[in-house]
Amino acid sequence: MQIEFACTSCPLIVMARILKIFTSHTHSLGLIRLHYFKGEKHKYTLSVNKKMSPFLIYRGGKREERSPEGLIMTISMENKLGEGSMVARPISNIVFIIAMQTEALPLVNKFELTEDPNSLFPKNVPWVRYNGKYKDLNVNIVCPGKDAILGVDSVGTVSAALLTYASIQALKPDLIINAGTAGAFKAKGASIGDVYLASDVAFHDRRIPIPVFDLYGVGLRQACCTPNVIKALNLKVGKLSTGDSLDMCPLDEASIMKNDAVIKDMEGAAVAYVADLLKVSVIFLKAVTDIVDGDKPTAEEFLQNLAAVTAALDEAATKVVDFINGKCLSEL
Amino acid sequence: MQIEFACTSCPLIVMARILKIFTSHTHSLGLIRLHYFKGEKHKYTLSVNKKMSPFLIYRGGKREERSPEGLIMTISMENKLGEGSMVARPISNIVFIIAMQTEALPLVNKFELTEDPNSLFPKNVPWVRYNGKYKDLNVNIVCPGKDAILGVDSVGTVSAALLTYASIQALKPDLIINAGTAGAFKAKGASIGDVYLASDVAFHDRRIPIPVFDLYGVGLRQACCTPNVIKALNLKVGKLSTGDSLDMCPLDEASIMKNDAVIKDMEGAAVAYVADLLKVSVIFLKAVTDIVDGDKPTAEEFLQNLAAVTAALDEAATKVVDFINGKCLSEL
Repeated sequence: MQIEFACTSCPLIVMARILKIFTSHTHSLGLIRLHYFKGEKHKYTLSVNKKMSPFLIYRGGKREERSPEGLIMTISMENKLGEGSMVARPISNIVFIIAMQTEALPLVNKFELTEDPNSLFPKNVPWVRYNGKYKDLNVNIVCPGKDAILGVDSVGTVSAALLTYASIQALKPDLIINAGTAGAFKAKGASIGDVYLASDVAFHDRRIPIPVFDLYGVGLRQACCTPNVIKALNLKVGKLSTGDSLDMCPLDEASIMKNDAVIKDMEGAAVAYVADLLKVSVIFLKAVTDIVDGDKPTAEEFLQNLAAVTAALDEAATKVVDFINGKCLSEL
Repeated sequence: MQIEFACTSCPLIVMARILKIFTSHTHSLGLIRLHYFKGEKHKYTLSVNKKMSPFLIYRGGKREERSPEGLIMTISMENKLGEGSMVARPISNIVFIIAMQTEALPLVNKFELTEDPNSLFPKNVPWVRYNGKYKDLNVNIVCPGKDAILGVDSVGTVSAALLTYASIQALKPDLIINAGTAGAFKAKGASIGDVYLASDVAFHDRRIPIPVFDLYGVGLRQACCTPNVIKALNLKVGKLSTGDSLDMCPLDEASIMKNDAVIKDMEGAAVAYVADLLKVSVIFLKAVTDIVDGDKPTAEEFLQNLAAVTAALDEAATKVVDFINGKCLSEL
């Protein structure tokens, strides 16, 4: 069986989703083949083994069957809705989402941003916005800020998701950059101070062992394609896995391995979820503060390297912004 | 040392926080005593052992010291900001946050609500709102809706937090009711079909082993005090613990035990976080679909009991709404 379909934006995300859905149900990549015609951008053929059973979907506990054609149609439809996000005009408005103010402040100084006294956000929320003009860009750096009672940075997925949502609503950015520190695996070639651009992101601590809900829990999403940024700035590229714990329990580790991740953070996949929901392009810039598969305790290593690694992150972030200046999303 | 302070709203939440902060650092309840003068509502004296060391706060990796007085001041200040939330007028506008549409639809029918065709939410988001008048109340039921690609309900903390935030912004409710199904522990007296009103909520899968960040991760919050609801409707009361996994790994289990929880869900603590952030009162109504410390696999038991338990949940939710009708928050 051959199914032809077209994607009008971010085809790689769509393809990754199709692959992920099919392979998790067939447990074999051999059953499907994807043909990408380079000459005809965004046109694909999906070959599916004739014997493949219909795709099962669970809605509110009830089982529904859907053919692969139905699935592709749904994905194409959804993707068309997001068409507007790839408009071919230079990027003018960017929002950095940075979880810790320690990570954000050197960049705030570098871009000569000032704190917005008339917050765009509801009163009482601790969210902070720094804003200013840098070259041709309107640059915003937003942080979830300090917890009102405990005084620590509001890290993790819930705060990051809320801040991303509110920032998109208030600022309508062309591009979101989720920048921050991360853990990484030396077994996959990472070292302290490395700066990664994430190719795709997923959760590792949302285990829902019900068909299809399992995929929802993992929440795999691809970052905006940036081959030219990677080439020009010589950044490392790897998959990012997100969870709300700084440590890593055996089940988290197994999920991180399944996500094939090199880097591990506490916000990325939540930012990706919201950006995808509201059809805004997003990239992830993560600097390595601790080696997850090393000997040192994560918390100790993280605090020890935070200042130095933040400098490396800021340098890379500045280079990325310099590269972005004057370019369209499709040129990244 | 004795510190007098006043709380103008939700004093129990404030007290719980003080207790939690102090006890986690002193590891002894004996060091502090709280005196509540019933005649003078909202006036407290906190007795602290003279030898108690200053409270340590970590800001951006740097250690700061703060005396117990400083801490109480901060808590009182923060609490004053939320003063408006306990206005003594009848509740007129309520929002149910319900993660699964299967759980929501019987209630939608019961209250004769209709789906809002002009969504208050951004385009593309799958969030659904049902609205209508029931007795003297404006009743809203909001659901995070089906994932656009996968077609399953958008369960979990990230979706619940976003939906709570957007609903508060758009609907300005007097009260939020987070209703849904949950797992529970038979060792703590729970059975399938029981309906609980949560006394307080916390996360069990956000482990951040850095001082103070650990408390932020747990995110303990108390539900709106409802002694009269509990008495009138004869509901079970217990602590609720929230995590993004349907299963329970050993570290989650240890945290759930530490949270002293009877019930386990996938949204509560995230809803509580946002409600607290935006100073809206919230209660949690959770019906037991599966016994966490039983023999059956959670996913199987959950799907098997979903329909029957939803009926029990709806019955309890209706009774709660009937009780709320015409009353102020302080009468609940």
